[in-house]
Amino acid sequence: MERTIGLIPGTGKQSQGIAKRLGLAGYKVMIGSRTKEKAERIAEELNEKLSLTTYRGDENSEVVKQCDILFLVLPYEYLYDSLQEFIPHFKPNAIIVDVIVPLTFKAGNATCLDDVPEKSVSEYIQSLVPEGVSVVGGFKTISASKLNKIDSPMNVDVFLTADNEEAKEIITKIISKIEGLSILDSGPLMYSRTTELMTAFVINLNKRNKLKHASFRVISDKH
Amino acid sequence: MERTIGLIPGTGKQSQGIAKRLGLAGYKVMIGSRTKEKAERIAEELNEKLSLTTYRGDENSEVVKQCDILFLVLPYEYLYDSLQEFIPHFKPNAIIVDVIVPLTFKAGNATCLDDVPEKSVSEYIQSLVPEGVSVVGGFKTISASKLNKIDSPMNVDVFLTADNEEAKEIITKIISKIEGLSILDSGPLMYSRTTELMTAFVINLNKRNKLKHASFRVISDKH
Repeated sequence: MERTIGLIPGTGKQSQGIAKRLGLAGYKVMIGSRTKEKAERIAEELNEKLSLTTYRGDENSEVVKQCDILFLVLPYEYLYDSLQEFIPHFKPNAIIVDVIVPLTFKAGNATCLDDVPEKSVSEYIQSLVPEGVSVVGGFKTISASKLNKIDSPMNVDVFLTADNEEAKEIITKIISKIEGLSILDSGPLMYSRTTELMTAFVINLNKRNKLKHASFRVISDKH
Repeated sequence: MERTIGLIPGTGKQSQGIAKRLGLAGYKVMIGSRTKEKAERIAEELNEKLSLTTYRGDENSEVVKQCDILFLVLPYEYLYDSLQEFIPHFKPNAIIVDVIVPLTFKAGNATCLDDVPEKSVSEYIQSLVPEGVSVVGGFKTISASKLNKIDSPMNVDVFLTADNEEAKEIITKIISKIEGLSILDSGPLMYSRTTELMTAFVINLNKRNKLKHASFRVISDKH
């Protein structure tokens, strides 16, 4: 089966980075946006830039209708309203890959919002979508700039969380075609809170210790 | 000034690891325990093992009375009661290094207790101790086994959190004498919650991905 993977929206820097990596791995990718025109324009730009015919664009809810796999790359503040709009359109067994970090700043320090109704954004999304739709948390710790530097292999860890193990396996298989990703099963959705907090944490490490592009790498005796 | 550093208690595997690293770095170390006899025995064992005269042992509250720097290595469940016992004995400007992770297990997965009254253990301790006593979070992510392998350099990151920047600097200076530690300023005490969660997270990564001694390392373009 040829899967189409959708990005909602596909217009930001992070989602275009993911779109590039998926396209280069051989997948058909749908770029979502609030307007069809913008989505089509960005899809065309990506096709040209990468010399592919992989990308097409449409309105976000059209992307929801047509894709089995949906990367949600919305700013957290638009999440609830957007999901209300998408709910009637989900395919019955759609899988959502949640890459959202609910970043906020307290006295100049990056952290995550405390008032996410469930403890992680991933759990929150899972609580809002129709039964049968599964959420997998992932890519939260990977920077847009790393995703977009397509000439260098990423050499990053991706932490996948899910309550539905089958959905986690499907996403594992899909993203294992992306070069330079080390995929780590990171347990149930509740662990997305940790990866969200780690992202805020690393932003502070950069600033406070004058590091550049700091990120966490899992080191082990088997690596 | 020759500082004496106390470990409360100094009898567990993690605190003995810290004791060894501090002793080898040239510090005088007091080993605390509920009984003076046990503390003295362990101090003597450490002196013998490392061919030093650095360690002495005493009851926990005696250690609190005599030390400017106190590593708190208590199991979380004893924390509140122990602090009540220690409160009358703290030196006016004592610094507590909190290395506690409030680990618990949910359906076989390691996580942190949700019911820490403040969000991190470090903030909780800070809320309980007398004014003038400062808490620095650190060493939460470093395993006892790494601390105890004194023949190999640690090559680990230590994430220091504190609301009192001066206390953080004092601890930074002290532990910079320990070989193989990369010390990272990790912001205010609230970020201890992240390092606590990261520790639980890594336990799960080990189990789920058949890794051995997995740990996080901060990678950056300046490292």
